[in-house]
Amino acid sequence: MEAIKVAILGASGYTGMELVRLLLGHPAAQITAATSRANAGRRIDGVFPRFAQLPGSQLTFIEPDMEAVAASGATVAFLALPHGTAAEYATSLLDKGIRVIDLSADFRLRKASVYEEFYGEAHPAPDLLDTAVYGLPEVHAGAIASASLVASPGCYPTSILLPLIPLLREELIDPSSIIANSLSGVSGAGRKADLSLLFVECNESMRAYGLPRHRHLSEIEQELSAAAGKTIVITFVPHLIPVNSGICTTTTTTLKGDLADVEHALRSTYENSPFVRLLGNEACPDTKNVTRTNFIDIGWQYDERTGRLLLLSAEDNLGKGAASQAVQSFNLMAGLPEMTGLSMV
Amino acid sequence: MEAIKVAILGASGYTGMELVRLLLGHPAAQITAATSRANAGRRIDGVFPRFAQLPGSQLTFIEPDMEAVAASGATVAFLALPHGTAAEYATSLLDKGIRVIDLSADFRLRKASVYEEFYGEAHPAPDLLDTAVYGLPEVHAGAIASASLVASPGCYPTSILLPLIPLLREELIDPSSIIANSLSGVSGAGRKADLSLLFVECNESMRAYGLPRHRHLSEIEQELSAAAGKTIVITFVPHLIPVNSGICTTTTTTLKGDLADVEHALRSTYENSPFVRLLGNEACPDTKNVTRTNFIDIGWQYDERTGRLLLLSAEDNLGKGAASQAVQSFNLMAGLPEMTGLSMV
Amino acid sequence: MEAIKVAILGASGYTGMELVRLLLGHPAAQITAATSRANAGRRIDGVFPRFAQLPGSQLTFIEPDMEAVAASGATVAFLALPHGTAAEYATSLLDKGIRVIDLSADFRLRKASVYEEFYGEAHPAPDLLDTAVYGLPEVHAGAIASASLVASPGCYPTSILLPLIPLLREELIDPSSIIANSLSGVSGAGRKADLSLLFVECNESMRAYGLPRHRHLSEIEQELSAAAGKTIVITFVPHLIPVNSGICTTTTTTLKGDLADVEHALRSTYENSPFVRLLGNEACPDTKNVTRTNFIDIGWQYDERTGRLLLLSAEDNLGKGAASQAVQSFNLMAGLPEMTGLSMV
Amino acid sequence: MEAIKVAILGASGYTGMELVRLLLGHPAAQITAATSRANAGRRIDGVFPRFAQLPGSQLTFIEPDMEAVAASGATVAFLALPHGTAAEYATSLLDKGIRVIDLSADFRLRKASVYEEFYGEAHPAPDLLDTAVYGLPEVHAGAIASASLVASPGCYPTSILLPLIPLLREELIDPSSIIANSLSGVSGAGRKADLSLLFVECNESMRAYGLPRHRHLSEIEQELSAAAGKTIVITFVPHLIPVNSGICTTTTTTLKGDLADVEHALRSTYENSPFVRLLGNEACPDTKNVTRTNFIDIGWQYDERTGRLLLLSAEDNLGKGAASQAVQSFNLMAGLPEMTGLSMV
Repeated sequence: MEAIKVAILGASGYTGMELVRLLLGHPAAQITAATSRANAGRRIDGVFPRFAQLPGSQLTFIEPDMEAVAASGATVAFLALPHGTAAEYATSLLDKGIRVIDLSADFRLRKASVYEEFYGEAHPAPDLLDTAVYGLPEVHAGAIASASLVASPGCYPTSILLPLIPLLREELIDPSSIIANSLSGVSGAGRKADLSLLFVECNESMRAYGLPRHRHLSEIEQELSAAAGKTIVITFVPHLIPVNSGICTTTTTTLKGDLADVEHALRSTYENSPFVRLLGNEACPDTKNVTRTNFIDIGWQYDERTGRLLLLSAEDNLGKGAASQAVQSFNLMAGLPEMTGLSMV
Repeated sequence: MEAIKVAILGASGYTGMELVRLLLGHPAAQITAATSRANAGRRIDGVFPRFAQLPGSQLTFIEPDMEAVAASGATVAFLALPHGTAAEYATSLLDKGIRVIDLSADFRLRKASVYEEFYGEAHPAPDLLDTAVYGLPEVHAGAIASASLVASPGCYPTSILLPLIPLLREELIDPSSIIANSLSGVSGAGRKADLSLLFVECNESMRAYGLPRHRHLSEIEQELSAAAGKTIVITFVPHLIPVNSGICTTTTTTLKGDLADVEHALRSTYENSPFVRLLGNEACPDTKNVTRTNFIDIGWQYDERTGRLLLLSAEDNLGKGAASQAVQSFNLMAGLPEMTGLSMV
Repeated sequence: MEAIKVAILGASGYTGMELVRLLLGHPAAQITAATSRANAGRRIDGVFPRFAQLPGSQLTFIEPDMEAVAASGATVAFLALPHGTAAEYATSLLDKGIRVIDLSADFRLRKASVYEEFYGEAHPAPDLLDTAVYGLPEVHAGAIASASLVASPGCYPTSILLPLIPLLREELIDPSSIIANSLSGVSGAGRKADLSLLFVECNESMRAYGLPRHRHLSEIEQELSAAAGKTIVITFVPHLIPVNSGICTTTTTTLKGDLADVEHALRSTYENSPFVRLLGNEACPDTKNVTRTNFIDIGWQYDERTGRLLLLSAEDNLGKGAASQAVQSFNLMAGLPEMTGLSMV
Repeated sequence: MEAIKVAILGASGYTGMELVRLLLGHPAAQITAATSRANAGRRIDGVFPRFAQLPGSQLTFIEPDMEAVAASGATVAFLALPHGTAAEYATSLLDKGIRVIDLSADFRLRKASVYEEFYGEAHPAPDLLDTAVYGLPEVHAGAIASASLVASPGCYPTSILLPLIPLLREELIDPSSIIANSLSGVSGAGRKADLSLLFVECNESMRAYGLPRHRHLSEIEQELSAAAGKTIVITFVPHLIPVNSGICTTTTTTLKGDLADVEHALRSTYENSPFVRLLGNEACPDTKNVTRTNFIDIGWQYDERTGRLLLLSAEDNLGKGAASQAVQSFNLMAGLPEMTGLSMV
């Protein structure tokens, strides 16, 4: 089988670097273009010595020139770019017939008005919003398979949505009671020269941030509302933790139904989802078990003293929360088995 | 002024070690006895090279022999021992006229039945429960000053109680809505040879644990109920985070009153509390600002979308959560200024 | 092709766990037996949730019973056991016709007397020493391929030997001038419940240890002497560093020849060695580029002010320093391409 | 006693921040001016919340205006500035009669030509070089006491010089054989927004850097040569390690004299040096025992197999390697006891 030619735009951030790692090793993909303003003209294996001697790592980063991307023969492009920027390139790439998997926030929201509310600027390409598919494969696999534009979810949303969606669909919880506390590794803040991200600033430090209305709330509430069939508003508290990668989310919500129904809803929803591991009642997922994989581990517990259900999830913010989830969508779009190229350990 | 002679029982755990550090440097205290089963016969500066050349660090650890403790002239004893064990020694010390500051859970609960429910064994000295004072100086300063037996609070409870108590007293929040998510450094689990506490196991790992009914819930709910004047039950989710020390707690609760009243309640309650730093609305306390101090930093935010108040606190689990808080009580008991011997930075 | 059945003895330590990871993913191997005294009766995926849902991870750990290992059909056994223990099982396995790759120190030394000198006890199976091959594939590939007993090198030795051997063979350096300073991640100390390995003890800590005569000196000097054709004695200083894995070694030695000859010797020796990456003059290898791989990265610099050559190497102590190197030997023994099953990134 | 008024220039870097911490707590000093280009106009406790509620932390950072510094009444100025910049301000301050403790490299070297060789630019104030005293109190206490300009040593030099100087003076080691391998925490690289210093880049990473001729070599060799009475050239290999602070140095050198003489030389040299802790033969100093103090811990071992002496030292790069050592010099200059304001634990 001939490899599918792919491009990575914004390939020198942490998500971009993880996409490079996964796609260099993907048996059905070939990276033909990788863009990086900061590193244009340098080879991938020069910028990232970790990849030295891997076939394909000798490729040279180019400027984000969509003509050059198209000329490379790429038929699918991964966009690991800041929001706002991504939309501009996506438009151009789609015009050239290149399918786009966008890892930014630009196409995750159905309504341009919500984008403007949460991102503080007018949506850069509102006409494309109807085209885009929210790239959560466990929920939208069919639409992803045929999409020309996939909006890959944010890291926090993935960890919050997957445990909740089956319970909302079955009306097992009180939708007004949802509170999600998430802990994120530092790579989630991106690879940028910022004093607050220095080793010395983050090490031996723990803190909440981005309160009370983190941008990811917009897509979380959109997808929860879709599952519940009505508008849902939640409380979301992200925290920054001194690990390289990983997201650990604890969601509390009032149980309406029976605990056995919770387990049944989760197991039946995900029985064919190879990347969702249901650890069962009383288990506490640990991020160290999912880093560098596309797994999300989910546990749950019932607190009979308060009537609340605790939903516990762990994923890699760069993996199931970003790059490997995008590759999972790519596999669906290419008609490949969902697990192709996604190492399991 | 002659120094007050003090003993530290269980001086080679992390809390004990922090007590040694603080009391070696305390201008009005002199350590005359330090017990450690594991290190009896060895000098403090041999077991903890960090303390070498500090006056007093040449003292030799002894077995936990209460006669020897009394013979050392100690008039106050700090107990940094496992629950169950502490009660036994406390009884003996009190009989000898030695005042006791117990950092274990043994005397924190008013009711032996609650102790049995949460700790799974009969209370070892129920007769002393009426005597004991819960050692949260910001709440019980007067009683602490004259107490013979102080039950110093747990690390999690301190971080949860101080932000909530003023709001419950003023009925500003819905008591049934309280959910506390706490992140703790690894020293909170104690200094014990346990596979799960190894560097390699904890590093690059984040997880919840101890669900759904952590033992500290018992004292948290006792003190919250006392503040509210009625029984309160909360949800509490502790997490283990790869830092040496620190607790970062995010508490969510439904606001009933006005946000301005929240600020007023906190500021008026703590205006004379030198160790409570109110960072104000929209601030996110960071554990790195409080480690090795007796400070607790508190911030708050109102989430108007959900009507919930977010209370954010940061302390050092070994400091305000354990050893330095116990020294604060010691200062009160000795009639010393509250801040004596408690370095502020 | 039918999978080669393999056994892992001592599969629940850090090296054993890495062997499990590699061999679960190895396309030509099947784990048929995994022993662990501590975890006998539990499934691999129960002990190591990271491996859940990987084919093969449902296997149950057994006691180290060599009859059961043989009955599983294993034709190759990996021994990740303490020295002393390994020899006993190796003898039994070899008797049963099972080829052995021993990752302990038991068969690395040619002389039982040196073993006794460095390990403080009589060699447990001196008759086997002539049979064993030192499992450094870049040096002994041919002998490994046909060996029944491979003694896989220690983590420190691998990082020290590979840069030095070509230079000693070519007599480019003064053999009496070799000083190696190595930094190791904490997993190198093993997965054992030991106070000194706790997160809180290791984090924010750096120290030398094991001076002046670390056990690994014995095999380092044996192999260096073999390369030089005369007895070599070196200084070796290991340090413990708060990272999970990785070894960073800086070796200083007086240059006798020309710097260009150094580069030529290294490049010609390793031109067909896929796991040795020569970063060139002035490069400083970083452990983060080699963790979880079988690569060793090597750089060098000449200090003209002192006439000394600096050799810099980085590897994963659990990878090229232990488990993946053992799998590399396995591949040679099985007639497979050297890189089979060894992910490169 | 009236407090001595002091200024800190460059007060918002890591060294500056540590100076702020120490001088806020110093019983005989009062900070009257703190400069920071980046934070001018903001209060110290706003930039560094850790210092909130400490007396003096309400001071507002000013631009580096020497007139304003003088107008604040400061009689001593600490310069925590980049080299090159420091010299310019020092000249102005000295002209105004303000004594200067410079923590940059600008006045550490006796010869402007050596400065130019190692720092790549002409010395900015060569006339002052004769005035400056190298601020290593254990070696130059007398000169420091009366100096108007103290050049406080670099972090690496302090850890290398103190163990070696007594041995060179007594001719106990071969001066041509000195090789120092140092491990530094990340704060040593400064508080600057640089990709290579991000948490994610440094965490789980170990590497050498700055080879083969780190700038600190110039002052190391100058002071070693002074002790030996002849020119000494050494090999120095610094490494970057994922801890916030600390330097761990291992120096190897060929022993000429007797091991007992080594111990005698060290003990007699430092018997009145309260901040040098000689741990004795076979001890391995650990940085965790010295962080946030002005101690340097020194151990040593003789490797009889090679005839080499191993000198092991640990200090805090921001403490004895920078800020607290500068305060130690300040104490000497002010005629205060050497330990004033320097917490010992």
